[in-house]
Amino acid sequence: MNMSSTPPAGSDFDALLNAKLRIVNRQLELLLSEQKEIQEDLRAALAYTLSAPGKRIRSALVLWCCEVVAGQDNHEARIAAAAIEMVHTYSLIHDDLPAMDDDDLRRGWPTCHKAFGEATAILAGDALLTLAFEVLASKIADAHLATELITQLARAAGAAGMIAGQMADLQAEHAAGSVELLEYIHTNKTAKMFRCAAVMGGLCGQAELGQRWGEPPQLDALARYGLKIGLGFQIADDILDVSASSEQLGKTAGKDVQAAKCTYPAVVGIEKSQQLERQLAQEAIDALQPFGERADILRHLADALLQRSR
Amino acid sequence: MNMSSTPPAGSDFDALLNAKLRIVNRQLELLLSEQKEIQEDLRAALAYTLSAPGKRIRSALVLWCCEVVAGQDNHEARIAAAAIEMVHTYSLIHDDLPAMDDDDLRRGWPTCHKAFGEATAILAGDALLTLAFEVLASKIADAHLATELITQLARAAGAAGMIAGQMADLQAEHAAGSVELLEYIHTNKTAKMFRCAAVMGGLCGQAELGQRWGEPPQLDALARYGLKIGLGFQIADDILDVSASSEQLGKTAGKDVQAAKCTYPAVVGIEKSQQLERQLAQEAIDALQPFGERADILRHLADALLQRSR
Repeated sequence: MNMSSTPPAGSDFDALLNAKLRIVNRQLELLLSEQKEIQEDLRAALAYTLSAPGKRIRSALVLWCCEVVAGQDNHEARIAAAAIEMVHTYSLIHDDLPAMDDDDLRRGWPTCHKAFGEATAILAGDALLTLAFEVLASKIADAHLATELITQLARAAGAAGMIAGQMADLQAEHAAGSVELLEYIHTNKTAKMFRCAAVMGGLCGQAELGQRWGEPPQLDALARYGLKIGLGFQIADDILDVSASSEQLGKTAGKDVQAAKCTYPAVVGIEKSQQLERQLAQEAIDALQPFGERADILRHLADALLQRSR
Repeated sequence: MNMSSTPPAGSDFDALLNAKLRIVNRQLELLLSEQKEIQEDLRAALAYTLSAPGKRIRSALVLWCCEVVAGQDNHEARIAAAAIEMVHTYSLIHDDLPAMDDDDLRRGWPTCHKAFGEATAILAGDALLTLAFEVLASKIADAHLATELITQLARAAGAAGMIAGQMADLQAEHAAGSVELLEYIHTNKTAKMFRCAAVMGGLCGQAELGQRWGEPPQLDALARYGLKIGLGFQIADDILDVSASSEQLGKTAGKDVQAAKCTYPAVVGIEKSQQLERQLAQEAIDALQPFGERADILRHLADALLQRSR
C-alpha cells in the first residue's frame, strides 16, 4: 500500500507528530535539568525559549528517519533530536535580534530579547549552540557515531550552511531577487538542516543495527528526502507569511513583505510557489523508494507540509 | 634546576611564545582555507578577526601542556589549540557588541561589528563557535579523544562556564562588587577556559603516549595550574585596564572603570590585586610539582604574567 496516495486523516498524522514532540520536549527538559551549574538567568531564558510551542519538525525527522532505518528510535536519536532542536532554537533567537530580523513575536510568545533583553538573548543563543555539541559529545557512548553526528550538525549549521543562508537572506533585503539567489538562501538557511536531521536519524538507526554507515545508498536517500522536504517547508513558510494571520503563525505575519525579504511568492508569485512546493514534496517522496512501506511516515510528512500552506 | 627562580630573559620567553603563536596562526589559516563553501562576506569577517594580533596564550597553553606530558606537541594539540582560539575569538566578537560591552577597539583593530556591521558580527561569532566543534570532530582521528575534547571545551565555554561569567559580568555593572562575585565572574569568564586549555593539551599528550587519560593526577595538576593562571591573567588584565594606555592594550583603556565593571582594582585596590596575582602565580607553579623540570615552560608563563602588569 502506498500511503502517499491514501494519507491518514490530518488528525492521525498530527497525533504521530505530537507523540514525537512529547519525546523531544521531555528529552530537552531532562538535558537542561541535568545541567546543574547553569547561571540562573540564563537557565530561565533557555527554559523559556525551549518550552515555547515549536512544531519540532526537525527533531521528529531525526526520530522518524531512525525508525525507517532500524524499525524504532533509540537513545542516540533522541539525543540527536534534542541537539538539532537546540541549534534550531538558537538560530531563531539570534535571527530575531534587532540587528537581524528584529522580530517581537516567535512561536506565539515574545521573542527572547523582548522577554529577557538583548544581551541575555545573544548569550542564551550562544549557550544553546554550545550545549547541543556538549550533549552529542557526552551523552552518546559510541564515540565514532558522536563525532559523525557533530560533524554533520556543525557543517549544516555553520558558515557553509545555515549561517551562510541567514547572511545571504539579510543581504538580499531590498535587492532584486532571483530564483538562483532564493535557492541559495533557502537551501542553506533551511534545507541543509532538514537534510542533516534526516542523515543524523539514519546514522543513529544504522548504529542501532550495528552497522557503521556502511550503506551510503540509505543515507543518500534520506539526505535527498531531507533536502527536498526542507526546501518545500521553507516555500510553504513563505506562502503562509503572505496568507495567514499573526495568530495562526505565532510570529508577525506579513513580516517578509514588510522587510522586502527575498521570498518565493515575491519572486515567482503564489501560484508558481505552490506548484514548486508540490513538485518538491513529490521529489521527496520519490527519494524514499528504496525503503518501501517502512518510510510511509516520511511520506505523510511530505503530504502534511503540502496541506499546511493551503 | 628550578627555572622559576631563574627565569629566562623576557625576550627568550617571548620568542618561545611567538613560535607557538606562528604554529597556531598557520593552523587557523589552514583550517579556514579548507572550508571551501563559506559564504564570502562571512569569510572576510572570520579572516579579519582571526588574523587580528592576539596573544594566543590559551592556544600556546594547549601546545605547552601537550609537550609537558608527551615531550612534544602533536597534530591533535594543534587542532585543539586552533579550536580554543576560535572559541575565544567568538567570545570577544560577541562581548564587544553594542548590546554587551559596546567596544570599538580590540587587539588594536576596530571590533568586528565596527568593521563589518552588527549582524555580520553576530553571525561571524556563531560561525567560529560552530567551526571549533566541527574541526575537533572531523580532524582528530581518535574519536574518543575528540569527544572528550569537545565535552571539555563545551563545558568551559557554555552556560556553566564562560557564558555564565559574561552574564554575571554584565549584571554586576554598577552593582556593589564583592570578592565572592569577582571570583565567580573571573573563574567562569576566564579561568575555566585556561583550565580547559591545559586539560585539552594534557589529553592530547596522553594520546601521544598511547594512554587513555588513565592518569588523573597529571590532568588534575594541569587543571589546577590552568585555573590559577587564568585567574591571575584576568587580575593582571584588570590592573592593566587602569594603568596602561589604549595603544598598549590594543583595546579601549579605562573601559572597565567607565562601565563601572566589577574588577579587582575597583573592589580591593591595586596593591591587594597585585599581591593576589603573585599568590596565584605561585599556586600555579606549585601545582606543577609532579612534572619536575619538564614543566619549566609553564613556570615561565606564570612569571611572564606577573611581569605583564608591572
